[in-house]
Amino acid sequence: MNIRYVIKQLGLLMIVISEAVLLVAIWSLIEGFYYNMPDQSEAGLALVATVAASVSLGTIFFFYGKNCDDYLGKKEALLLVAMSWVFGALICAMPYYIWANVYNIVTDVTTNTPHPYSRIIPAYFESMSGLTTTGATVLSKITSLPRGILMWRSTTHWLGGLGIVVLFVAVLPSLGVGGKKLFQIEAPGPSQPGVRPRIRETARILWMIYMGMTIVMAGLLWYFGMTPFDAINHTFATLATGGFSTQNASAGYYTSPSILIILICFMVMAGMNFGLFYHLIKRKFFVFWSDPELRLYLGILLAGTIFVSLNIYNQPLTLTSGETLEDPTPFTSTLHAAFQVISIQTTTGFCTVDYENWDFLSKMWLVIIMFVGGSAGSTGGGIKVIRILILVKVLLAEIERVFRPNVVRTIKVGKAVIDSSMKLSTLVYTLNILILFTVGAVLIMIAERNGGINGNGIDFVTAATASAATLNNIGPGLHQVGATANYGWFTDFSLAVMSLLMALGRLEIYALLVLFSPHFWKSE
Amino acid sequence: MNIRYVIKQLGLLMIVISEAVLLVAIWSLIEGFYYNMPDQSEAGLALVATVAASVSLGTIFFFYGKNCDDYLGKKEALLLVAMSWVFGALICAMPYYIWANVYNIVTDVTTNTPHPYSRIIPAYFESMSGLTTTGATVLSKITSLPRGILMWRSTTHWLGGLGIVVLFVAVLPSLGVGGKKLFQIEAPGPSQPGVRPRIRETARILWMIYMGMTIVMAGLLWYFGMTPFDAINHTFATLATGGFSTQNASAGYYTSPSILIILICFMVMAGMNFGLFYHLIKRKFFVFWSDPELRLYLGILLAGTIFVSLNIYNQPLTLTSGETLEDPTPFTSTLHAAFQVISIQTTTGFCTVDYENWDFLSKMWLVIIMFVGGSAGSTGGGIKVIRILILVKVLLAEIERVFRPNVVRTIKVGKAVIDSSMKLSTLVYTLNILILFTVGAVLIMIAERNGGINGNGIDFVTAATASAATLNNIGPGLHQVGATANYGWFTDFSLAVMSLLMALGRLEIYALLVLFSPHFWKSE
Repeated sequence: MNIRYVIKQLGLLMIVISEAVLLVAIWSLIEGFYYNMPDQSEAGLALVATVAASVSLGTIFFFYGKNCDDYLGKKEALLLVAMSWVFGALICAMPYYIWANVYNIVTDVTTNTPHPYSRIIPAYFESMSGLTTTGATVLSKITSLPRGILMWRSTTHWLGGLGIVVLFVAVLPSLGVGGKKLFQIEAPGPSQPGVRPRIRETARILWMIYMGMTIVMAGLLWYFGMTPFDAINHTFATLATGGFSTQNASAGYYTSPSILIILICFMVMAGMNFGLFYHLIKRKFFVFWSDPELRLYLGILLAGTIFVSLNIYNQPLTLTSGETLEDPTPFTSTLHAAFQVISIQTTTGFCTVDYENWDFLSKMWLVIIMFVGGSAGSTGGGIKVIRILILVKVLLAEIERVFRPNVVRTIKVGKAVIDSSMKLSTLVYTLNILILFTVGAVLIMIAERNGGINGNGIDFVTAATASAATLNNIGPGLHQVGATANYGWFTDFSLAVMSLLMALGRLEIYALLVLFSPHFWKSE
Repeated sequence: MNIRYVIKQLGLLMIVISEAVLLVAIWSLIEGFYYNMPDQSEAGLALVATVAASVSLGTIFFFYGKNCDDYLGKKEALLLVAMSWVFGALICAMPYYIWANVYNIVTDVTTNTPHPYSRIIPAYFESMSGLTTTGATVLSKITSLPRGILMWRSTTHWLGGLGIVVLFVAVLPSLGVGGKKLFQIEAPGPSQPGVRPRIRETARILWMIYMGMTIVMAGLLWYFGMTPFDAINHTFATLATGGFSTQNASAGYYTSPSILIILICFMVMAGMNFGLFYHLIKRKFFVFWSDPELRLYLGILLAGTIFVSLNIYNQPLTLTSGETLEDPTPFTSTLHAAFQVISIQTTTGFCTVDYENWDFLSKMWLVIIMFVGGSAGSTGGGIKVIRILILVKVLLAEIERVFRPNVVRTIKVGKAVIDSSMKLSTLVYTLNILILFTVGAVLIMIAERNGGINGNGIDFVTAATASAATLNNIGPGLHQVGATANYGWFTDFSLAVMSLLMALGRLEIYALLVLFSPHFWKSE
């Protein structure tokens, strides 16, 4: 295991992150200075301190591994991926922690309650939630934060979203890790000489697609009435399927249908395989439209929208802003149903409606699609639509195999044949997600047995949806982690568990899980 | 598809069941006459009416298929298995239904509430619960029933237990259906001439083992203080891992440690692969002790006992009889912990303690082992220990495959190599159980949205554990279906769903699920 090389690369990563922090810092300081906003200047200084700390740490890491072999094998790649998110979240948590501690921020002046960011674990949770594009927050009053800190929160989404797309579409398939067939840009196994240039080329195209979408979306949101600041923040959170908002009422702050429709469109795009956009640019429209995962993905979104629309038809709607629409028009009702269904399935997690008051069936649908999630190679989380597709085909084939054991039926997804090792890994992945979900819920139940908002412990639905919403990188769940609630009241232990769940879900489990295998650390 | 032959065999089955009904009827009438117990005579007459009805129906079925081809293929076998439980439960429900309706039995004289047995669905639920050896009951006051009806309830357990062992150890492996390797008595595929005599021979041995255990256990229980009536009933319920008791407090009515220890020992045996007893009789002690499933099964039981004992150590114990032991001795505490853990994991479902008051960790353990269940080829339900064993090995191997894709590791259970089709079917089976469990819980939640004991709907834990406890053939769950509760308050729709879950779980899903496949009904 070439650990020095991994450390060197981590050092580089820290320096890259510092550059992003620096940009936000400069903007904050300028704004703070020109408009005389002291809290914005404070945020800027916290960000500058972060730059100093992470550049120093990055340089140490880089020089520690400077003269190492330039060899990146499969194990090194896996370790680097896992550590990128673990250490990355540490760096990204610094602005929160430094800001809250240096300026002694309190959330409640009368009781002198310290800000959640002043503790390490909640700050780390928020940062991991950002980088994994989950969008679960420990904050209750978001608008009380300086704009610099809010901008940094959204930026972690944007960085995490870009990172995950590049990782799953360009890097891992080229290294032969993970199901290559899950992704549209075909890449042969790790034939040493050609891999790196190809990774670089694919990554460059993905970065351009991501950048282009960012500019278009932010422009549209601005044009249709958001402030430039909100437009940029919501763009970052949408394209990464993150869900951090700059408003207490989340996306529900915006009542303009055009803004909600723009958000809907870009959430749908963010949940699509970014490899497909590559084909679109290459004018291979047929490859794009004939993609079976895309069709199923859009089909489930549409089915969910229709189902929930009908289920909440003629019911009053409680918005996240607190307002209740006693008699919403069919258009309004359908728009909010579509928004909520798409926000949850794409694993974005924006809320316009407090769906806690919805009928059981709609809530059930939301919980089920939490596990379905977006497409492979998207910024979305969950089990992924293509795995669900393979799963359904395998389950049906197994039923037939009981009474026709000699009939061999080839399972295909589009033109790709799903071989038995692919079937097995899909089943194992799904089962692992269900096991982690259960373990997570149980650990949270145990940690909160004397906790919860009123000290009487928490109900199972809260624990289960908190586990599901973090593991699948959604954000909000039900009950005490519902649309208008937050994660600030959890014990540190629960927040640490959920931080791990977010990282596990984001990296599709294995990149983290392998680190616990003794074989992984043995030299071959 | 040779449906006539299936119908003929169903006719035979009904006549066999009638014989069992007849025995209980004769005993009831004699006891009712000699001891002048009018309700016992009523029960006897209801049983006689059942005999008349089912013999008539059986004869019609038999003559309908009399001159058919004597061919039993794989599809016919699967259909016959499924219909045996579906129709069998119908016949077995007749005594309850006839008795409650003919004698206008009411449960509450002041409000004139009709007995649950007077409705078809609850009576069918009780009967299916008996035949599938689940032990979930719609009754609240068990002791108010005549002895004849109680004896019939227990007899359905005994019949169902015998049926399932013969089916899974003798019949299905000989037909090449289901994982042959899961069972200890090896049998080659369906080579037509030799199959039937072998099935008959194996079935004969299993029947003798079952009969022998029945006599020994009933004798022991009688010797240590049970009445002969209770001894026979509890023997039937234990060997089948059923759980119907003749006492309102279930097994908790008996405070004698020796009786509880006898029950524990036989529950453990009933959860073992009956094929292993065959080896024991053939004096192949090595095969018996080296069985990896047996070792893991005993290991999990022991681990659970230790875990729960420590968790409830020094805690007050609320017995199912209503009595509370404020300061139980370590022996009493451990005995009840062992009893409850073993009763749930073997899927018997007897209760001595109201575990609702236990700590969250102990309750969690009980829910998890509901899904683990007994051994393959036992009378117990659940996913089965051997599948859990294969599952754990496959999951660990998949983690290693991520960073060492070229290392091929053979997965073995004992000496048997688990091939990829076996791995796939184990994973699919487990996933199917989890899916059915979820679907069941959701359907129950929907059906009870305005129901439940107080009309405000039911909580998720009740719905989930009701689904788990019926699908895995346990009996009691948590909350409103807990140790001292019953299933009588459910709507008919929920009871129908749970009847289906019991049958699905008992027949290891496929025998019922294949009937919903259009391919199954097409001729080849």
